[in-house]
Amino acid sequence: MTEKRNLMAGNTFGHLFRITTFGESHGGVVGCVVDGCPPGIKISEEEIQKELDRRKPGQSSITTPRKEEDEIKIMSGVFEGKTTGTPILLLAYNKDVRPEEYQEIKDVFRPGHADFTYTKKYGFRDWHGSGRASARETLARVAAGAIAKKYLKEKLGVEIFSFVEQVGQIKTDIYFNLVTMEEIESNIVRCPDHKVAEEMIKLIEEVKSEGDSIGGVVRGVIKNVPVGLGEPVFDKLNADLGKAMLSINAVKGFDIGLGFEGTKLRGSNHNDPFHLENSMIRTKTNNAGGVLGGISNGETIYFRVAFKPVSTIKKEQLTVSKDKKEVKLEAAGRHDPCVLPRAVPIVDAMAALVIMDHFLRHKAQNYDYL
Amino acid sequence: MTEKRNLMAGNTFGHLFRITTFGESHGGVVGCVVDGCPPGIKISEEEIQKELDRRKPGQSSITTPRKEEDEIKIMSGVFEGKTTGTPILLLAYNKDVRPEEYQEIKDVFRPGHADFTYTKKYGFRDWHGSGRASARETLARVAAGAIAKKYLKEKLGVEIFSFVEQVGQIKTDIYFNLVTMEEIESNIVRCPDHKVAEEMIKLIEEVKSEGDSIGGVVRGVIKNVPVGLGEPVFDKLNADLGKAMLSINAVKGFDIGLGFEGTKLRGSNHNDPFHLENSMIRTKTNNAGGVLGGISNGETIYFRVAFKPVSTIKKEQLTVSKDKKEVKLEAAGRHDPCVLPRAVPIVDAMAALVIMDHFLRHKAQNYDYL
Amino acid sequence: MTEKRNLMAGNTFGHLFRITTFGESHGGVVGCVVDGCPPGIKISEEEIQKELDRRKPGQSSITTPRKEEDEIKIMSGVFEGKTTGTPILLLAYNKDVRPEEYQEIKDVFRPGHADFTYTKKYGFRDWHGSGRASARETLARVAAGAIAKKYLKEKLGVEIFSFVEQVGQIKTDIYFNLVTMEEIESNIVRCPDHKVAEEMIKLIEEVKSEGDSIGGVVRGVIKNVPVGLGEPVFDKLNADLGKAMLSINAVKGFDIGLGFEGTKLRGSNHNDPFHLENSMIRTKTNNAGGVLGGISNGETIYFRVAFKPVSTIKKEQLTVSKDKKEVKLEAAGRHDPCVLPRAVPIVDAMAALVIMDHFLRHKAQNYDYL
Amino acid sequence: MTEKRNLMAGNTFGHLFRITTFGESHGGVVGCVVDGCPPGIKISEEEIQKELDRRKPGQSSITTPRKEEDEIKIMSGVFEGKTTGTPILLLAYNKDVRPEEYQEIKDVFRPGHADFTYTKKYGFRDWHGSGRASARETLARVAAGAIAKKYLKEKLGVEIFSFVEQVGQIKTDIYFNLVTMEEIESNIVRCPDHKVAEEMIKLIEEVKSEGDSIGGVVRGVIKNVPVGLGEPVFDKLNADLGKAMLSINAVKGFDIGLGFEGTKLRGSNHNDPFHLENSMIRTKTNNAGGVLGGISNGETIYFRVAFKPVSTIKKEQLTVSKDKKEVKLEAAGRHDPCVLPRAVPIVDAMAALVIMDHFLRHKAQNYDYL
Repeated sequence: MTEKRNLMAGNTFGHLFRITTFGESHGGVVGCVVDGCPPGIKISEEEIQKELDRRKPGQSSITTPRKEEDEIKIMSGVFEGKTTGTPILLLAYNKDVRPEEYQEIKDVFRPGHADFTYTKKYGFRDWHGSGRASARETLARVAAGAIAKKYLKEKLGVEIFSFVEQVGQIKTDIYFNLVTMEEIESNIVRCPDHKVAEEMIKLIEEVKSEGDSIGGVVRGVIKNVPVGLGEPVFDKLNADLGKAMLSINAVKGFDIGLGFEGTKLRGSNHNDPFHLENSMIRTKTNNAGGVLGGISNGETIYFRVAFKPVSTIKKEQLTVSKDKKEVKLEAAGRHDPCVLPRAVPIVDAMAALVIMDHFLRHKAQNYDYL
Repeated sequence: MTEKRNLMAGNTFGHLFRITTFGESHGGVVGCVVDGCPPGIKISEEEIQKELDRRKPGQSSITTPRKEEDEIKIMSGVFEGKTTGTPILLLAYNKDVRPEEYQEIKDVFRPGHADFTYTKKYGFRDWHGSGRASARETLARVAAGAIAKKYLKEKLGVEIFSFVEQVGQIKTDIYFNLVTMEEIESNIVRCPDHKVAEEMIKLIEEVKSEGDSIGGVVRGVIKNVPVGLGEPVFDKLNADLGKAMLSINAVKGFDIGLGFEGTKLRGSNHNDPFHLENSMIRTKTNNAGGVLGGISNGETIYFRVAFKPVSTIKKEQLTVSKDKKEVKLEAAGRHDPCVLPRAVPIVDAMAALVIMDHFLRHKAQNYDYL
Repeated sequence: MTEKRNLMAGNTFGHLFRITTFGESHGGVVGCVVDGCPPGIKISEEEIQKELDRRKPGQSSITTPRKEEDEIKIMSGVFEGKTTGTPILLLAYNKDVRPEEYQEIKDVFRPGHADFTYTKKYGFRDWHGSGRASARETLARVAAGAIAKKYLKEKLGVEIFSFVEQVGQIKTDIYFNLVTMEEIESNIVRCPDHKVAEEMIKLIEEVKSEGDSIGGVVRGVIKNVPVGLGEPVFDKLNADLGKAMLSINAVKGFDIGLGFEGTKLRGSNHNDPFHLENSMIRTKTNNAGGVLGGISNGETIYFRVAFKPVSTIKKEQLTVSKDKKEVKLEAAGRHDPCVLPRAVPIVDAMAALVIMDHFLRHKAQNYDYL
Repeated sequence: MTEKRNLMAGNTFGHLFRITTFGESHGGVVGCVVDGCPPGIKISEEEIQKELDRRKPGQSSITTPRKEEDEIKIMSGVFEGKTTGTPILLLAYNKDVRPEEYQEIKDVFRPGHADFTYTKKYGFRDWHGSGRASARETLARVAAGAIAKKYLKEKLGVEIFSFVEQVGQIKTDIYFNLVTMEEIESNIVRCPDHKVAEEMIKLIEEVKSEGDSIGGVVRGVIKNVPVGLGEPVFDKLNADLGKAMLSINAVKGFDIGLGFEGTKLRGSNHNDPFHLENSMIRTKTNNAGGVLGGISNGETIYFRVAFKPVSTIKKEQLTVSKDKKEVKLEAAGRHDPCVLPRAVPIVDAMAALVIMDHFLRHKAQNYDYL
């Protein structure tokens, strides 16, 4: 094997509201430390669990059958039911761990997976269920995001939700502004357009039966964001949202407002005219997606997140082994035929973490405090 | 005016190779400090200027007529023609400054611009040509990027280039792998597909004559990236590339590899099979765009960057003034009808900054140093 | 009670080798996440435990009688006995927890403690054994430091140790260069000068019998540091060592080389002349303490760390309660009459964390890698 | 020469109020970028110049005769006399530059200087007047500190000053609480105890006439700091103050409150009892130096900073050349016989930068904003 071995130190997200995640897919635990959480927030394991249950495996016929309760424990930073302003340790023990299932892929680089790059970067890899590269890590993000989401909702009225807009070629045109959390949660694919949802489910079942997988798009929505969040010129709100989403496993694209579609328009059509609404300055249209010059303008933020099809499939694939032999691979491991329904709470969580961090950064410099 | 006033501290990009930019559109200077540049690199003002000339205004009939030479000066950190490892100050003086042209928009929020959000965030704004929110700031990025680009090319053979793939509805299907820098630079729109380039130029001229603007897409390409760059789980190479691009003025979207298109595929089609090529492990296809699990896999990195149409247009628009009156606006200020041709070197520069920073981060932990 | 409530986000130390600590004195757990640890290092719980045992309470007649095994668990980031380059979670459960003992001080600000400042900063405090402000947090530093120490020793030959140089007025003049770890560990006060050690122990026992406490000085020593560590102008090696030490509970001062004593000298006496030793460039004297211009010069680094007397005493003190009444306080809680003997491994650990982080930063930019 | 070459990226200080300095002793410019400065602060070049004049060379008979006006220019980030919240570029051109004076030391490692370590770290060095390692860099700190100092004074009433407490063996026992800025500035050595000041001046003149140099101690004082600044457990206020001071050229030690002296006391004497003063909670004594648990408690912060004697002397010294030959050196270059009088404004500036940054961090999390 290669002699080059490297490490990583990229497991922290955020500046003032910061999370550091840890844990492997088939190791003992997965979790995170939340540093910078304001004190005095009432938070319980039950509230966090509620978000985690939306992400957990085995929740429906179209998700992986791995059985994990993803039971979260608050281990520090909360005193008498409230955050104290000190680091919060959130921990979930892995239960349905079957390292033996990965024995056969131990020396083989699975296509689409991080097996090859981790091995080259670090010199070897934890081959039990993708180790650290597993999407199981996102459990920690959802747990931390639940705290941010609660704070933002209660203190600022910020509402964050997302839904499955597209699976494969099937796409809903539902207007995000009319969507409610209830409708999103009303079906197992998390698409609020019931008719399209049925088609999506059918497609996923079909793909599953073929041992294949399918990609899709999640639409994210953030309402009631205060004006002024975002720190140009590099830490623009849209740039940090983009980074947050692109750091999620399997994400290959992000756009905000009209995004790629808007590139076809002329300025006279794309610009959102300002006008007065109940003596407040608002834009008539919202093609910008709630962000101007990298700073929130008070309009609804909406964006798209592109997920590639899950790399684990049950079809035979060609690949290469660690000792440089070309081999055939029939993938082991339980998996999701389509990651989108479980990705929805992850997108929510990352959005909450970004808004929370930028809210604190913004507040640091609020002039009228003095 | 509002009493709420805030500040920003988001003007630094990178961890080990870090740039901090400063300067306003119509202020005295624009520039940056580069900290963390390896010592011993030969660099001259001429080399940096070459990149800047690709970005500068007035370079062709389809760019803004503002006359700026964007003459760069190396003010520190270079000794006897070589970098010393200490901070490099890069400075360009603004020359064609006409603050008086902005008098009439001083109290008005231009649609699509950051006038409104900056005023709300900071309490007031430098209204001379958008102040800090002007794309003039990207001059500093291009200058710093030139150093990174040179280092990466000479030391590692990394090649970075980008081109205009789409303007409005006009799009080239040219295969990025066949594109050369010469062809990109062979026409004023920077599209290497000559026939399509002509159509694009025609469209931009048409849009210009109407006093309007148009958006488009830049395709970025990075070749010969070493395997192993990227720091999961948050500082994935694709996430940092995305953030870099989304921090450029007018950018509304980013995708990598097959990106949004790839969401329609099945895993069996999307996965890139590994095979041996001259006894090296390579992928047969490159749908992933050179990144697996957030780490470079040695294949070519390619991505798209979506630019909205320029906000400054010469058509009448409705808007609101600082004192909350609805007014009509006929935009002042010289502008680009289409920002794409000048955006190409900016995309190059941001790509170089990301790769450089990740290369140093990767090297920090290279095991075989010991 | 005050309405002002704040949070903190200062629980992370280091740039490339980063630790984030969490946990409270009488909460469930104390521990940390180590991010950026190079992969491939053999590390066991036993090795870490060995360092922790030097810090743990109840180890001798002159330390607090609290009974904690401080049993450390490696929960992630290690695979088949080696680090993987991913985050390492280190965890110890609190066992001898007696929150009820703190009931009576719950509403009272203990002099010398952080009760007052935490309450004012965060709006309330976890009053169980000082919560987060307890020196129990340093357990996590020692655990993380053990990994750094091992790496530095094995890969670079760096040796780190410290000892008690002064307790109250009693001081040893032993030359640090002659001290060995064995001698330091040969007595319970961790002073390698046996005669002085006996006096120190006697003093501490006396102080203890009076229900009082006493301060002192730890001498830190780092041998075989490679030339070149330290990142001017702000992240000088001495500046980061100073910050590391000053972040330890009860530390009020730090100096390096001749330090405060050296201020009385003239340059002609203080300057260390260079000469050749076995054809290596060395200094004849080492008044600078191994650092020139903020960068290690290859000579032994030595420094002093000043600890104030422990704030918890069993004597009656005057103070004020939360509801602003002047009250008398007879302190509850078990405590150390002198923190110095247990501080020695903490100083070692912080030194190891600083050297490790700077070694990786230095290596990031090592030119001959290319 | 060595093949090992490295770089540095340690030229940024602060988190929310951040400065990045650049420039060499005998290069074109010295200066910094201030990022994160709140908008709306009135600031002029004259105000900054006033602080710089206290640091500039040639100000008296006991400082270096180098003639530099250190004329500061505000190049960006200020609009109509007020900060805009965007990066502020502060620039001073070097004028009295005599690189030729350094020709003879070009290949020689001066004892006490960074010549050796810079050469080993970066592969070569800018030998013109110590290049980046020169204390000339502190000009930028003083300029940035002037803005912070003004903000803190006007908005919060914070007062920052420091003075020379000791030169060689000569020491004043003046009580810092009674010292005024006027008295500090009333003599050229900046010691408010006039009798002792005369002795100090005499000593410095003596040392100067011998071609030697002498060290000393600066006492720093910060009054009216709001309760609550400091971010445990690592970014404690005292830890960041210590780092700030230890990053200044020639500083070898720092202590706060009773510091090293306090280590000799018992807890019953060292603890500061709380009591009520005009119904405010205050401490009767202030042995802690205004910081408890790493957080400001509202009492005056006072600390000591130890400066070694200046390394440049006019006496013959033994040393080694780049090509490893033992040589004699008679130092060239103009220098200060005692750096203390000019160090006073630098200590002030670093204190202001730390308090400012921590004030913004504290404010970020202020609960009652909501």
